[in-house]
Amino acid sequence: MANSAGLNEAILDDPEKHRFHADKGAGLRPSVNVRDWLQAAHADVLFEATSLNVESGQPAVDHIRAALERGAHAITANKGPVVHAYQELSDLAAKAGKRFLFESSVMDGVPIFALFRDTLPLVKLQEVRGILNSTTNVILSEMENGLSFDAALAKAQALGVAETDASYDIDGWDAAVKVTALATVLMGISMNPDQVNREGIRKLSVQAIREAKSASKRYKLVCGLKRVGDTVEASVKPEALALTDPLAAVEGTSSIICFQTDIFPELVITENNPGLEATAYGMLADFVRAVESDRPGRTH
Amino acid sequence: MANSAGLNEAILDDPEKHRFHADKGAGLRPSVNVRDWLQAAHADVLFEATSLNVESGQPAVDHIRAALERGAHAITANKGPVVHAYQELSDLAAKAGKRFLFESSVMDGVPIFALFRDTLPLVKLQEVRGILNSTTNVILSEMENGLSFDAALAKAQALGVAETDASYDIDGWDAAVKVTALATVLMGISMNPDQVNREGIRKLSVQAIREAKSASKRYKLVCGLKRVGDTVEASVKPEALALTDPLAAVEGTSSIICFQTDIFPELVITENNPGLEATAYGMLADFVRAVESDRPGRTH
Repeated sequence: MANSAGLNEAILDDPEKHRFHADKGAGLRPSVNVRDWLQAAHADVLFEATSLNVESGQPAVDHIRAALERGAHAITANKGPVVHAYQELSDLAAKAGKRFLFESSVMDGVPIFALFRDTLPLVKLQEVRGILNSTTNVILSEMENGLSFDAALAKAQALGVAETDASYDIDGWDAAVKVTALATVLMGISMNPDQVNREGIRKLSVQAIREAKSASKRYKLVCGLKRVGDTVEASVKPEALALTDPLAAVEGTSSIICFQTDIFPELVITENNPGLEATAYGMLADFVRAVESDRPGRTH
Repeated sequence: MANSAGLNEAILDDPEKHRFHADKGAGLRPSVNVRDWLQAAHADVLFEATSLNVESGQPAVDHIRAALERGAHAITANKGPVVHAYQELSDLAAKAGKRFLFESSVMDGVPIFALFRDTLPLVKLQEVRGILNSTTNVILSEMENGLSFDAALAKAQALGVAETDASYDIDGWDAAVKVTALATVLMGISMNPDQVNREGIRKLSVQAIREAKSASKRYKLVCGLKRVGDTVEASVKPEALALTDPLAAVEGTSSIICFQTDIFPELVITENNPGLEATAYGMLADFVRAVESDRPGRTH
């Protein structure tokens, strides 16, 4: 049994250990590793929502590997395992007859991955364009309204939008990792976040943003992904968009993704004003998918 | 074997018969009914894409019933069977362990029904707003650009957009039937197209449309659906929309649907500039779904 007060954050500093502290009141061992913990809990499904080392995807990758090797479904809100170990974890899941699911990792719980996997068979995705990072979107809107960069960042943090390390968002890393996850899963093309042509919003001045506004344009941090032969061109960069561009209308924590495919010239999905429960819902929906796939001979 | 030159359109005039003409050259009987034909063809899947009697859903309903009773999957691009016999045909499909699928019936092949059925478990749909009829959308755009109603209609017909009976589109019936299908399938609330508060675009003058344009508004034929207790309020009517409304930007054959749910405050799907192959793709995607559900113990 895990500590009913929650897990010790200290374990996240040491990806080699991943030690969970057992409930002392129940007379269990004071700490166990992830594999022992999964065993003791008789886990059928693991929800993985730890913090993340961006460069390695750890400890999430190890947690998910342990769950799948044990024969439990693995559900994560982390982009890291998708970016760093998608093929390995997918193969492991297939071998175990279990699911590795990560719907909440991009665009909260909006079913972007499920859309292509479960509802658009045979479609070939050619291009993606979108706004996928809320922190920078809130900051840019606030700077348009007159706030300085620092004041806009503080407001994003007060709203609970900015992630733990704001530079990860501001420098475009969060968006770049999402773009990488989309290329990997939806286009079947392996790439690293390092390969994304990445530029954050740190160098954008209040003046540049106001000048754009008076020219009927808006700066947005735009994610781009384009299939070129067997590879992709991927970018994250600020662009001054005309107001007629659907991306220009996306405010605050809303997000948008435009897909160009071989069948549909353009499919656009917009998520307006999601609450925090949208991310939790994505994990719940993955849980339903996982449990449904356990039913023998199901026909949907 | 069916006549290789195609089916005789005359059968559509007599929903009691549905007689298909067999290929005389092959020495088969000169005509057979649908059940005989399904039997002779050893059909595993029926693609139903006949024309439609709006008030009865025939002959499509009978074709689909015959296929499901035979143990074949039934796939249709017709809204009629959904609106007139959804529960009966769904029950029949479940009993046979087969699928009754109709993705192409609303918004071409964009997976609107699959989105809720296969990717948004447990979500409760509260409200829908959208533009779902291309003929009226093309006509309204052309009238904005200065054409008369008749000239705009002729242009829509020349583009191959207007359906066989244009009054069905112009008077809002096509949109009303789509709204009814959405209420029935996505909200689980049975209703008839007659219950839709329906107003077409026939009474809209060129002058009214131009006046709206000069006031920075655009007329669109807006579909609305709102859950109210155990029932719905459904409407199809022309509205002068502000340019900031996402519906106002939808041009020509493009379409848009906005969903309000208990989890996502607003999810919007926009389909821009689809070709005719989008509808064919929807039936192909349904075919893949149907065949996949035949595989024993599949886990997606």
